[in-house]
Amino acid sequence: MDILIKNGVVLTIDSQMRRIDNGYVAVKNSKIVEIGESKDLAATQAKEVIDAKGGIIMPGLINSHTHASMTLFRGIADDLPLMDWLNNHIFPAEAKLTPHWVYTGAKLACAEMILSGTTCFCDMYLFEDEVAKAAYDSSMRAVVGEVLYDFPSPCYGQIEQGFEYVAAMMEKWRGKLESLITVAVEPHSTYLCEPKLLQKAAEIAHKNSIPLIIHVAETLSESSQIKDRYGVTPVKFLADIDLLGANLVACHSVHLSESDMELYKKFDVKVAHCPESNMKLASGVAPIPKMIEKGICVGLGTDGCASNNDLDMFLEMDTAAKLHKVFTMNPEALNAQTAIKMATINGARALGLDSITGSLEVGKKADIIVVNTSAPHMIPMYNPYSHLVYSTTGNDVVVNIINGKIVMKDRKLLTIDIDSVSADAREIAKVISK
Amino acid sequence: MDILIKNGVVLTIDSQMRRIDNGYVAVKNSKIVEIGESKDLAATQAKEVIDAKGGIIMPGLINSHTHASMTLFRGIADDLPLMDWLNNHIFPAEAKLTPHWVYTGAKLACAEMILSGTTCFCDMYLFEDEVAKAAYDSSMRAVVGEVLYDFPSPCYGQIEQGFEYVAAMMEKWRGKLESLITVAVEPHSTYLCEPKLLQKAAEIAHKNSIPLIIHVAETLSESSQIKDRYGVTPVKFLADIDLLGANLVACHSVHLSESDMELYKKFDVKVAHCPESNMKLASGVAPIPKMIEKGICVGLGTDGCASNNDLDMFLEMDTAAKLHKVFTMNPEALNAQTAIKMATINGARALGLDSITGSLEVGKKADIIVVNTSAPHMIPMYNPYSHLVYSTTGNDVVVNIINGKIVMKDRKLLTIDIDSVSADAREIAKVISK
Repeated sequence: MDILIKNGVVLTIDSQMRRIDNGYVAVKNSKIVEIGESKDLAATQAKEVIDAKGGIIMPGLINSHTHASMTLFRGIADDLPLMDWLNNHIFPAEAKLTPHWVYTGAKLACAEMILSGTTCFCDMYLFEDEVAKAAYDSSMRAVVGEVLYDFPSPCYGQIEQGFEYVAAMMEKWRGKLESLITVAVEPHSTYLCEPKLLQKAAEIAHKNSIPLIIHVAETLSESSQIKDRYGVTPVKFLADIDLLGANLVACHSVHLSESDMELYKKFDVKVAHCPESNMKLASGVAPIPKMIEKGICVGLGTDGCASNNDLDMFLEMDTAAKLHKVFTMNPEALNAQTAIKMATINGARALGLDSITGSLEVGKKADIIVVNTSAPHMIPMYNPYSHLVYSTTGNDVVVNIINGKIVMKDRKLLTIDIDSVSADAREIAKVISK
Repeated sequence: MDILIKNGVVLTIDSQMRRIDNGYVAVKNSKIVEIGESKDLAATQAKEVIDAKGGIIMPGLINSHTHASMTLFRGIADDLPLMDWLNNHIFPAEAKLTPHWVYTGAKLACAEMILSGTTCFCDMYLFEDEVAKAAYDSSMRAVVGEVLYDFPSPCYGQIEQGFEYVAAMMEKWRGKLESLITVAVEPHSTYLCEPKLLQKAAEIAHKNSIPLIIHVAETLSESSQIKDRYGVTPVKFLADIDLLGANLVACHSVHLSESDMELYKKFDVKVAHCPESNMKLASGVAPIPKMIEKGICVGLGTDGCASNNDLDMFLEMDTAAKLHKVFTMNPEALNAQTAIKMATINGARALGLDSITGSLEVGKKADIIVVNTSAPHMIPMYNPYSHLVYSTTGNDVVVNIINGKIVMKDRKLLTIDIDSVSADAREIAKVISK
């Protein structure tokens, strides 16, 4: 075997939530080949042996919605009304975007995500091919999609070229599908995309069996715009133009009616929930416990760094669990295991990747992290699930393995020259703040 | 001078929110003696020179409400209804408490707090003298108070002995008041304490000019109990028995009416806000933006580790800022600077310690932390206040100085033998889980 991780609490997050208190996971040729109890481990010849030292061995986290390159705008504007934030800060900064900026911002995001235990992310942005490159160069798994809308894009110009850009990305990354990069089709939203654009996007996604990813019902103002324009909710509008389907990832989905949720359920639509962003922008609280009760698949995402302002999925789990408890006034709402499933297997399912990642199972790709449990804030440990959600931060992650490759060990990044990326990001920030 | 911290962004959190982008802070005999721009710094002879390396130099954080020793119960029971949690998990565990347990749990808490940038905490628990010892031995500043209620206590027995216990603590720690430990009087709540107990507690606090600390209006069930018993809100009840005053710290204060808040304002009552605990236990959301608008002094606390489950004040600031935005649907609610003031100077004011701590000012005690800003999740940095609230975790703290003594440097604890404390805590946990 190539890698043996031993001496840890193995949380598989498989369908039985199998847990092995003193266990090991073995990796060969990018895949998980064995999971078992340490006592059954014969003398082995692994090229690399990792001692988890009693820590937690678990599947890598899946960030189901982000705009990675927005690390460049981290903290540029906070505590502002949404339209002021967008029109006077984010859009002007984005108007200056270059491929180099997008690559640098995404690389910085990959560094932060790897260090905080994420192994796969789903991205939407401009110049998205640069995000794909940054993920690929960092050895991260990613679902990438150029953002599509009806007005001219700083990246591709007119929408016709937008679809050409998507086609070129699919062509370019097709050979790497099996390994790390999946191209998705990503129209921005119901309010920035006319039905024609949305239907064409859906057609491409359907023809290529890839995810269709869109922001839905993020704000009340969006709901009211769609109501004015089409007389229905954003979800009903999508249903009316035949966009709902099992490959649709509806990001945010904050303002949903009961019948919107029923439509999601009927068409097996997936949801990417971003609680911290929804809180910080005062967008609202998505009815996640209800969706889960109905059997809708919900992943978890950080959204971009301008509205969070970090990419730490452990903090996102903690916030999700706590927010829904207080919002429903029910301390049993969204328990720790549910939060962890959202951040792992359900995220994988949302992105159509659950056959290869999202849990520790023999035959799946080796996307594995190790969480240190010896720091004071993790002592004592009665329940590892509780610790992961309510006590852990990304900083407790000490090993990150993606596709069978060790990308971080002992907090050292092994695929990214962080000094050079940081220096580039700081130079770009100088231009942005001018 | 004894310590010189240089080459950092100095955020004073003084009344002018003075910020020095490349500044230094000098310490002598436990106090801050100089704050200035690095360019004005003459060649100096400090015994210890700390290079902040461009990081943030700021006042240490003040945790205005916790039960430190509950680190021992971290994760023992989550995601449960409050009464099930209390009656079937927390109370049975607490029934086994010993002075050694309380000391060990508090020491573990001190380690976690020091590592996450807290320099002062306000505590309420059983066998509280052990918490005072743990804080003193760890060189932490603390406000400590034995919890008082009408039924027999595992620590002191009958309430008369409870008041004797408080008197003995005051006597014991009096000599150390000037340095680190303040004893407060801490009746548990309006529902566990009869008016007689509360009034006697207030009298002792008044006579000794020390804080009077109590849980107020934490849950709807509490409000309804007090309504049944006295026909009024918990706050009005406290007003009626003359308990409201500038030395009163009303922890939680979740369910307040407009007139309750007016009473707080009128009597200059202080509030310790614990958003994460209130979320996790589904207690509710305190109307903090309204209180702040009225000019009520609000500090921030983590509450105990059984209902959070960590003591990281940076995460608490982040949650406070985001929770109130989404709960009021106003992205301008509780901005980053406000959150930081709650966790520093307003916490100090709440505890009656603002003349000696809570901000970086010449003449104040040297309670100072340094936050590293070179990790990927802190790059780039446009606005240090934003970073502290929305991107920083306690793990980014690289130096912690309390009362002029360096208690942590480069993530190494200098006043606590953490291996020994961790081993003790793990042994106790085995007994607890039996």
